[in-house]
Amino acid sequence: MERTFLAADFGGTNLRAAIVNESGEVLYRTEHATPSTGTPQSIIVEVVELLTAAVKSSGATPAGACIATAGLIHADEGKVILAPNIPGFRNLVLTTPVAERLGIPVFIENDANAAALGEFRFGAGRGTRHLLHGTLGTGVGGGIIVDGKLYRGARGLAGEIGHIIINPSGPRCNCGSRGCLEAMASGVALAERARRMLELGKSKVLHELVGYEDPTAYHLWKAAERGDAGCEAEIRHAGHLLGLGIGSLVNVLNPDAVTLSGGLLAMGEMLVGPMREAMYSLAYGPAAGTLLRMSELGEDAGLLGAAAVAMERLDG
Amino acid sequence: MERTFLAADFGGTNLRAAIVNESGEVLYRTEHATPSTGTPQSIIVEVVELLTAAVKSSGATPAGACIATAGLIHADEGKVILAPNIPGFRNLVLTTPVAERLGIPVFIENDANAAALGEFRFGAGRGTRHLLHGTLGTGVGGGIIVDGKLYRGARGLAGEIGHIIINPSGPRCNCGSRGCLEAMASGVALAERARRMLELGKSKVLHELVGYEDPTAYHLWKAAERGDAGCEAEIRHAGHLLGLGIGSLVNVLNPDAVTLSGGLLAMGEMLVGPMREAMYSLAYGPAAGTLLRMSELGEDAGLLGAAAVAMERLDG
Repeated sequence: MERTFLAADFGGTNLRAAIVNESGEVLYRTEHATPSTGTPQSIIVEVVELLTAAVKSSGATPAGACIATAGLIHADEGKVILAPNIPGFRNLVLTTPVAERLGIPVFIENDANAAALGEFRFGAGRGTRHLLHGTLGTGVGGGIIVDGKLYRGARGLAGEIGHIIINPSGPRCNCGSRGCLEAMASGVALAERARRMLELGKSKVLHELVGYEDPTAYHLWKAAERGDAGCEAEIRHAGHLLGLGIGSLVNVLNPDAVTLSGGLLAMGEMLVGPMREAMYSLAYGPAAGTLLRMSELGEDAGLLGAAAVAMERLDG
Repeated sequence: MERTFLAADFGGTNLRAAIVNESGEVLYRTEHATPSTGTPQSIIVEVVELLTAAVKSSGATPAGACIATAGLIHADEGKVILAPNIPGFRNLVLTTPVAERLGIPVFIENDANAAALGEFRFGAGRGTRHLLHGTLGTGVGGGIIVDGKLYRGARGLAGEIGHIIINPSGPRCNCGSRGCLEAMASGVALAERARRMLELGKSKVLHELVGYEDPTAYHLWKAAERGDAGCEAEIRHAGHLLGLGIGSLVNVLNPDAVTLSGGLLAMGEMLVGPMREAMYSLAYGPAAGTLLRMSELGEDAGLLGAAAVAMERLDG
């Protein structure tokens, strides 16, 4: 009988769980609001309950499980070092309570790492051997596949492509450094650019769209779609910087392909065009032959990736 | 009987060859001026002769050989795609003629990749599992060890850490891009800074040191050692940028250690101090635990690395 896996994507808004088979087919799925109040311990209890209920409802007997979540994850120790989406989560082991309740091996993985393995195994990265995956959303993350396996580095922390310096005199990043790729070309960075444009009274279209809300990357994009040249220039510039960052890493890693996922990709060619151009313009030998592919798994990259991680971990 | 290997370091100035055993001991070594005139074919013939003579003189019977050289090397095909040090060398197979003459397997490797494996196996990288090695000299290069093996990427071109963009509005690089690490913080970049300082009449000390020569990074360093604050600031700034570049890659690769080799390291703490500070300042989780070590093999990194490559390839 084909094995199945319990996959969970523990996001800032929702906790999604699924039963996935070895071919990456979702046999059952469920979704709940992420537990956001309570102590870390009570949140863990709630997660255990939700996942236990999911397995019960599905009728499946998964061979193992994996929880994908944002933040610094020490995968080998099953530990969440720091999770921006889960207040109070610091240096906590999340796997053991779930494993004890379900009676199966449970793993944890950074969500961008999981997405990388998901695309590699079931999506846009199929058929490659070395892969660089980038997640372009609120933040910028990534994951690396080396020789067909997820590369975690010395402490399970590899793949933080959002924290390469793209301009030493650039804006301050949440991580404390200056001019990180994430600080210059992410959802948060674009929202900041939108805020700046509003402050300077630079876009009437944007002003109308935003109204009394907080400006977001989405507003900036919609204003650009309505023909605002300044907003379009901001998005194109972010694409250009993303391309320089990705191209830099292509020169270092010489992967077969780069795959991309994340909400920013909804902006389409306005973002991806300048990105592709900048990436290939760093035409130092390696970059020339590297493919650039958009996610095939979309929002399920993390979820299917979690299943792929459980499978890879069980198969050693 | 312990195996030995023929190692060659095909540099811009000298062709160095050695017989090295499995422990990294040099049993025999010889050195010749790099053949610099003639057609690529005649240069290949000369290299074959020099290596054959080296083996004969050593009395050894090496199990295999490896030639390390600068440039874009397609290691799996034994091909030199582009070698800056060897005029006219483009898309040439260098291994086959040597293998035919010596009757042993012959490999070729990028010299920075070889240095990485050399330090990993015999030098400052011993005891690590994942290693990032940087070569800081006329140019900036590097090599990556993943899981104890040299990581070559999809086409054998991985490790080009000199061609990550550190400032999109920085100076033009030899590769055609703008603001590559190599264009901003290498021997060539420092020589360019020295030239600029002379043009602007900014350093009397430097002017005296250089006289009618072409200014080099060495002159800049010597002027700094004589107390010229402007020259020292240039070197410290280059160190800072190197640290930002290396720290960025530490965030991506999360290696156990970074090892460094190359002529620029002669500048000592003036360069390495700001480099270390900048690297650790990118204290996104991964960077914090990564060691920074200086080469233990010095000028022999490429040569011993070539031996290590031959050994790794034969043990495949």
